[in-house]
Amino acid sequence: MKATLGRLPVYLRYLKELDPAENGNISATIIAKALGLGEVQVRKDLNSVSGAGRPKLGYKTSALIKRLEEVLGQNRISKAIIIGAGKLGNALLEYNGFANYGLEISAAFDIDENKIGNTEFGKPIYCLDSLEEYCKAQEIKIAVITVPAAAAQSICNRLTDCGITAVWNFAPCQLNVPDGILLQNENLALSLAHLKLQMNNQ
Amino acid sequence: MKATLGRLPVYLRYLKELDPAENGNISATIIAKALGLGEVQVRKDLNSVSGAGRPKLGYKTSALIKRLEEVLGQNRISKAIIIGAGKLGNALLEYNGFANYGLEISAAFDIDENKIGNTEFGKPIYCLDSLEEYCKAQEIKIAVITVPAAAAQSICNRLTDCGITAVWNFAPCQLNVPDGILLQNENLALSLAHLKLQMNNQ
Repeated sequence: MKATLGRLPVYLRYLKELDPAENGNISATIIAKALGLGEVQVRKDLNSVSGAGRPKLGYKTSALIKRLEEVLGQNRISKAIIIGAGKLGNALLEYNGFANYGLEISAAFDIDENKIGNTEFGKPIYCLDSLEEYCKAQEIKIAVITVPAAAAQSICNRLTDCGITAVWNFAPCQLNVPDGILLQNENLALSLAHLKLQMNNQ
Repeated sequence: MKATLGRLPVYLRYLKELDPAENGNISATIIAKALGLGEVQVRKDLNSVSGAGRPKLGYKTSALIKRLEEVLGQNRISKAIIIGAGKLGNALLEYNGFANYGLEISAAFDIDENKIGNTEFGKPIYCLDSLEEYCKAQEIKIAVITVPAAAAQSICNRLTDCGITAVWNFAPCQLNVPDGILLQNENLALSLAHLKLQMNNQ
């Protein structure tokens, strides 16, 4: 499912770039060819979001665009926050790929007063003291943790106390979360280690 | 395999912290208990790197440590470089989790002359012009791409021309690599999108 999810914005971008005058039907075969993907894969991806295309005709382009936007949540933007405005936190704060998935990083929080203010692209970095107030007022449900490992669990506790239900953790440690809270750990070193292992096995 | 790889440094750290005086044998049961992991999982992980433990005795601790260090490549550090010393490139350059996997990011390269110099932790950022010379002299095989999408393919071509055999790509675009070159794409937005999807399905 995650691999499919990664391809959906690619399909959507392609469909939106098609000439609206020709905006009738489109087949998985044509999409696959245009994007250099396998036809079976494209058919499977599209079936999973929109049901099977009609034989010979394929998909109605406008309906497929609408369905992809729905699945990707582009019509209901979810706001997320970052705790820890160090290099990684700042990189994520200004990364513009989240919009494809109906996600917006709306603010970052840090304990270091020197970091508080607006980034060059206008994203706010607030004092950690205002975390609870902001989360409640903005009804934030998703938080990204990019603080050092030693601070991560206490931050995580504060987040779940103020209504966060999904945590994306970059701190290199195990976090305990209450039942019902989603936790996804990101281990950046692991991806590179995996690549090295594959390389050594070649 | 990737999930197992993620746990191996955790086992290694635990084993190394054991009292050397007691450094005889250790069982998967004890390791699982100490680390809060499932016993079946620990047994499977350790079997995959070191064969089965001996009934009743378990593993010889010193041999298991040695084997984990071997598998993780901690005795033969692989150097990797980063192309693109923006926020993400800098964050990765100073991330210290790579050493667990026998990896060292030895330098970054950028076209922006203002970025050239040493980071606060002493890692060098070089001018992109010196990429080929550095890769050949240092026999670099692994590169991380954190440049904008528009520049990524030409950087990737230069990298494979100067002996790089594994590319970890953070640029939000598809890259073409010659046969025999490993390419791993990292889509940071995707992890957060996946988390959001799970949250919405709860």
